[in-house]
Amino acid sequence: MIVDNAIYRKGIRVPMDCAPSDLRAVRERLMGDDDFIWIGLFEPDADELQEVADAFGLHPLAVEDALVAHQRPKLEVYEDSLFLVLKSLWYVDATDAVETGEINMFIGPDFIVTVRHGSGSELHTARLQLELKESVLTHGVSAVVYAVCDTVVDGYLDVARELEIDVDEVEVSVFSPARTNDSTRIYLLKRELAEVRRAVLPLREPMRRFVGGAVPGISPDASPFFRDVLDHLERSAETIDSLDNLLSTAFDAHLARMQVQQNEDMRKISAGVALVVVPTLIAGVYGMNFEHMPELGWALGYPFSLLLMVVASWALYRYFKRIGWM
Amino acid sequence: MIVDNAIYRKGIRVPMDCAPSDLRAVRERLMGDDDFIWIGLFEPDADELQEVADAFGLHPLAVEDALVAHQRPKLEVYEDSLFLVLKSLWYVDATDAVETGEINMFIGPDFIVTVRHGSGSELHTARLQLELKESVLTHGVSAVVYAVCDTVVDGYLDVARELEIDVDEVEVSVFSPARTNDSTRIYLLKRELAEVRRAVLPLREPMRRFVGGAVPGISPDASPFFRDVLDHLERSAETIDSLDNLLSTAFDAHLARMQVQQNEDMRKISAGVALVVVPTLIAGVYGMNFEHMPELGWALGYPFSLLLMVVASWALYRYFKRIGWM
Amino acid sequence: MIVDNAIYRKGIRVPMDCAPSDLRAVRERLMGDDDFIWIGLFEPDADELQEVADAFGLHPLAVEDALVAHQRPKLEVYEDSLFLVLKSLWYVDATDAVETGEINMFIGPDFIVTVRHGSGSELHTARLQLELKESVLTHGVSAVVYAVCDTVVDGYLDVARELEIDVDEVEVSVFSPARTNDSTRIYLLKRELAEVRRAVLPLREPMRRFVGGAVPGISPDASPFFRDVLDHLERSAETIDSLDNLLSTAFDAHLARMQVQQNEDMRKISAGVALVVVPTLIAGVYGMNFEHMPELGWALGYPFSLLLMVVASWALYRYFKRIGWM
Amino acid sequence: MIVDNAIYRKGIRVPMDCAPSDLRAVRERLMGDDDFIWIGLFEPDADELQEVADAFGLHPLAVEDALVAHQRPKLEVYEDSLFLVLKSLWYVDATDAVETGEINMFIGPDFIVTVRHGSGSELHTARLQLELKESVLTHGVSAVVYAVCDTVVDGYLDVARELEIDVDEVEVSVFSPARTNDSTRIYLLKRELAEVRRAVLPLREPMRRFVGGAVPGISPDASPFFRDVLDHLERSAETIDSLDNLLSTAFDAHLARMQVQQNEDMRKISAGVALVVVPTLIAGVYGMNFEHMPELGWALGYPFSLLLMVVASWALYRYFKRIGWM
Amino acid sequence: MIVDNAIYRKGIRVPMDCAPSDLRAVRERLMGDDDFIWIGLFEPDADELQEVADAFGLHPLAVEDALVAHQRPKLEVYEDSLFLVLKSLWYVDATDAVETGEINMFIGPDFIVTVRHGSGSELHTARLQLELKESVLTHGVSAVVYAVCDTVVDGYLDVARELEIDVDEVEVSVFSPARTNDSTRIYLLKRELAEVRRAVLPLREPMRRFVGGAVPGISPDASPFFRDVLDHLERSAETIDSLDNLLSTAFDAHLARMQVQQNEDMRKISAGVALVVVPTLIAGVYGMNFEHMPELGWALGYPFSLLLMVVASWALYRYFKRIGWM
Repeated sequence: MIVDNAIYRKGIRVPMDCAPSDLRAVRERLMGDDDFIWIGLFEPDADELQEVADAFGLHPLAVEDALVAHQRPKLEVYEDSLFLVLKSLWYVDATDAVETGEINMFIGPDFIVTVRHGSGSELHTARLQLELKESVLTHGVSAVVYAVCDTVVDGYLDVARELEIDVDEVEVSVFSPARTNDSTRIYLLKRELAEVRRAVLPLREPMRRFVGGAVPGISPDASPFFRDVLDHLERSAETIDSLDNLLSTAFDAHLARMQVQQNEDMRKISAGVALVVVPTLIAGVYGMNFEHMPELGWALGYPFSLLLMVVASWALYRYFKRIGWM
Repeated sequence: MIVDNAIYRKGIRVPMDCAPSDLRAVRERLMGDDDFIWIGLFEPDADELQEVADAFGLHPLAVEDALVAHQRPKLEVYEDSLFLVLKSLWYVDATDAVETGEINMFIGPDFIVTVRHGSGSELHTARLQLELKESVLTHGVSAVVYAVCDTVVDGYLDVARELEIDVDEVEVSVFSPARTNDSTRIYLLKRELAEVRRAVLPLREPMRRFVGGAVPGISPDASPFFRDVLDHLERSAETIDSLDNLLSTAFDAHLARMQVQQNEDMRKISAGVALVVVPTLIAGVYGMNFEHMPELGWALGYPFSLLLMVVASWALYRYFKRIGWM
Repeated sequence: MIVDNAIYRKGIRVPMDCAPSDLRAVRERLMGDDDFIWIGLFEPDADELQEVADAFGLHPLAVEDALVAHQRPKLEVYEDSLFLVLKSLWYVDATDAVETGEINMFIGPDFIVTVRHGSGSELHTARLQLELKESVLTHGVSAVVYAVCDTVVDGYLDVARELEIDVDEVEVSVFSPARTNDSTRIYLLKRELAEVRRAVLPLREPMRRFVGGAVPGISPDASPFFRDVLDHLERSAETIDSLDNLLSTAFDAHLARMQVQQNEDMRKISAGVALVVVPTLIAGVYGMNFEHMPELGWALGYPFSLLLMVVASWALYRYFKRIGWM
Repeated sequence: MIVDNAIYRKGIRVPMDCAPSDLRAVRERLMGDDDFIWIGLFEPDADELQEVADAFGLHPLAVEDALVAHQRPKLEVYEDSLFLVLKSLWYVDATDAVETGEINMFIGPDFIVTVRHGSGSELHTARLQLELKESVLTHGVSAVVYAVCDTVVDGYLDVARELEIDVDEVEVSVFSPARTNDSTRIYLLKRELAEVRRAVLPLREPMRRFVGGAVPGISPDASPFFRDVLDHLERSAETIDSLDNLLSTAFDAHLARMQVQQNEDMRKISAGVALVVVPTLIAGVYGMNFEHMPELGWALGYPFSLLLMVVASWALYRYFKRIGWM
Repeated sequence: MIVDNAIYRKGIRVPMDCAPSDLRAVRERLMGDDDFIWIGLFEPDADELQEVADAFGLHPLAVEDALVAHQRPKLEVYEDSLFLVLKSLWYVDATDAVETGEINMFIGPDFIVTVRHGSGSELHTARLQLELKESVLTHGVSAVVYAVCDTVVDGYLDVARELEIDVDEVEVSVFSPARTNDSTRIYLLKRELAEVRRAVLPLREPMRRFVGGAVPGISPDASPFFRDVLDHLERSAETIDSLDNLLSTAFDAHLARMQVQQNEDMRKISAGVALVVVPTLIAGVYGMNFEHMPELGWALGYPFSLLLMVVASWALYRYFKRIGWM
């Protein structure tokens, strides 16, 4: 599905309402150096994508990749165009989960084709913001590539921040006196982190190449901007690694705490048992059948024995309280 | 055993029904630049392989390697030919296990010799598909090398997908309330992953060299295609690593869950014991032999004592229910 | 907020009381090669910083970074200036915690702009010390950059020393016979170490580039001095790594100790139970209703039975003492 | 002790029965390019080795190393000779242990001196096999170096195979229902693996240099042969790493299994206790001294009470069987 | 404190009894290429060191480092001199601990200044041995640098050997049936290993540079000798790593053994409890008050009941013995 397309001439959007089959003709009419077409596709079917691919002469391997999604982030340099794959990430509050989309970009001297998969990876806002900055758009396709990368990577930082909050919650839970089932939570968070890592780490290589300024079709003047994106990427990566390590340590602490709780339970139970077996012993003693047991004949023998039981249990209780077993 | 052999002339298969001893003569008759012979062998014995080796002048060390299997994936560049070893993997549903085969390829300017070991590593389908693409086959041996690598590496992705399903099952099992013996399952999966890793990781180096375009005998024009194979390899490797980490985390969670279960069992047992020892104490008290115990003379003394026992147990039961011990 | 600014002419401080809007004029009057302006800002608002940025032509991306803090340590080389980000660390005794500030430096041929965030990262002392060394200041901005880096990195060593003390305390606690909740402490310390690591490690790259002497605007003569800073950085990093490993080992030892304690508790409890159930058995025996039990008729039967209980318990007690269960 | 020495002239062994002191003279008589002397020493004393060293002008540092053994595998290039140290490994079935020997080689243009330490590192077979291949021996000292390296590294593969069998046994033991002391076995195997790793890993560097063909005195024509040795080395290293990881995972599974067993024991014990305390409670009830307890007067009261106990225990037993506690 | 100083002229020691203030004059009188002064200082105060520094023109940063100790091992190349820092290690039998000293060397074309910290890092023996080898000393300062490095690194090997013995002891202790507190021992040993590692690892870089032969002031002819030192360093490093891994595995085995012991204790305790509760049940049965209990009237009823208890306990005991619980 084509969601948006336009020509950008000297930084100004010119609407382009033509069928994909006319793209080739439109392209030939483009004159200025920095004029370019930006086609935005959302989960296109094979035919739609093929028409666009024919118009711009996209490489079949790249087109195949763009169609099925589930690629790794990567940059491929073809003779007359670039193919850039990014994973977009967003945090869904309702499920505390990170979801993943994919953005494929075909970048030529006079065109950008963006192919999105997944509902969360919208580029409309980025396009609108860019269209407000005429002077930026006059830099041509490099400006669009930067804007898309910047949007996506800012999304990583957002996700990292949300995950930091989740890890803080786990931490509070682990060290709270309540009995909590933190291991499930930790496991799920580690899974999310692994997913984020798979989006973030492979993207560093393409960004480094943009910073290096040696990618054909990407202006070396954009280098400081891609350096900024790369810096945000590195920050995301460091945050992710740091959270992962924290979670491992938190899991260990959780294990230790469970061990402590089992220890405490065991001692509490033992103390409780003692409170019962000691009176039972006393009862057993006065249940013996000796002919000569003076207490048995006492008028207050029975209350005395009960008192003995209570005193013994109470003394034990005080003792266990003191040594912290109860 | 020779399973298939043919000459490919201008991309079209020409049957070649000759004894291995005539290979040399056949080879000399090959004229066109992109004409080549493709011999397919399956677990050949030493003599069979030697006859082929003599016809094409294969290096003795490589021939020895191809005979015994159990090699690492590798690419060896000899003066007039290449020797490429790949591990083929396939998933056997019946046993939930990954099995391993081996494909050895001798690649010369005008010939390909494939030596397969293991029933699952068939190349017949790849050959048929290739024979349908005349234009591809005119690119000569590079096209065959790509087709074989592509087939093998697609098999890796299939295996990785199956293992992802297995890991998902383990995950569900670990976090289910049932008492499951997940550690055995996790161990076996980690073993499978290690086996896959041994097939996948060493193959990256040869693919990188093909992508680099500096391997004699492999056309630099095939570079984007091998880059695609390399990309799939990287994806397999990342999936494997990610699954391995998930399994380690799942194992930790499994340990933690067992600890929790032991804790719960211990508390449940203790509560159960309490339900018995408290009435026993009461029975002990009324078994004492004091002369003056008013309850003993009561007409309803006995039912009263039984009621006392039941009430005590029931109160304890309610208490333990409330604090979650039962 | 501008906290301090001055011109340094031939190594001597010249007060400069002008509004930020006059900076450009002041700058144009600077003549000598090593004369430079040093502006010190503390958590400036956007307008304040923008005025300074306009005067010195600072790059907008760097200005944006300096405004919001939470950057990674890094060095960015722009056409006519450098942008250096450092994290400052200090240890707060009251909370046993490491706190983090940030210092951003814009370095031009004739100016230094320092932007500080966080109360602990003060540079006033460093400036005063530097102003005492006229000969050093004649080396221009490189001397200031060195002085700031040196101050910050010395802070890292201080923090590392404090953390070493904390780790020593944890160690004593882990191996003390007391039951201590070391896992929380270890977790918190590992968190602090992770924070320090995030400040220390990324700074090595900029320092290496200064040592290499190929950063425009930083004098190669300063190379031995930055090598000294780098050496301190490496020492901090090694200390941090070493402490982290020690804490992991200490945590393992803590787990083992808890296991030992549980073992000991279990044996102690079991021994205690034995001291009660054996007399209970004796009482049970003499509570049997056989007609012919000679002991029951003895005049001293009762004291004898009590003695038997005491002796049995005492013998058990001695036995458990001997085998170390009590 | 000199165990074997000979001149190889045009690939044919020429006996050389001379005292070490005559070596220099013998050496001078060597004429042909590929003629060389091969001296085999076994645990020589300092004097023996020194005589040989004098004859061939060996470097004192290398001679010292060769005398005391316990070197790391390494290659040292001196002006006029090479010094190569290899660790030989062999598996002793009787003790299930890996033993280590050492082979030091001095390699000159017209001589090879091999110094062996440890009974298992014999080279006699390798020499005999080599002497059967006249054409190989005409390649001079490179052929001997290859033959020795090949023999030693084949030994690594043998050891790796034996260790694989041991690991398989451990695996079976860990997952068998029997209570086994696998941690000791795993520890010892990990120790063996560490020993093998110390022999295998450092040897890769020298082999890579031989493959690269830039070591003076080693013919570049031998490169494919050393590549074969290197490949075997890599395979040994991968096997070792893989086994080590498997053992770690097996150890974790062993821990988990012990935890499971403790859980099962605890539940079994608790069930057993219940089978005794419930009848005890019943006995306690009928041991009460109430005047009005109808059952006490029944003619079949006693058998009834016993039956009650049996039925209660049997019901509990069935219950525990059903929930898997017994 | 100056502990020793002398001029070495053509390899022969010439006493030099002069105040530090005369050093400059003495130095000017040195004529021959390989003549040099060797000043040995032990924990000098700032003034002492400054005097020497002035005489030889040592760099202030290096002088500061040499004064305070606690440096990392490193090599710094200044314009006219080198500054080398080594950590010396020695093993103190009395405390089973590794102690650390520090040796700082200033190396110029015609002088060596060694500054030692810590009592165990003595160089006197190395100097005496060197003075016996006139031919070596004629090689000038390189010979001294080598001799010092060799002495220090041999110390590392000694320490590594002692630690190997300690690890062997821990291993024996872990696998002995006795209950041992190995976790403390393992922790302390890991601490020692970390300390050794901090001395050993950073020294490899300087040694590699000496081997490379490109350090000004160090003769390339000394390269084989420094290669020998480097080789010993690598051996120490490998031993340390290997011991560290062994200790980690031993710790795991220790944990597993504790788990086994707890299991055994629990079963032993349970069996012991059974031996008491079963007779208690029998006593309870004969303590019931039924009117018609034939055994109660038997003449031998009492001994029979006691026998029943003993037989029941003895049967249980035999059973528990057989299943290994006692």
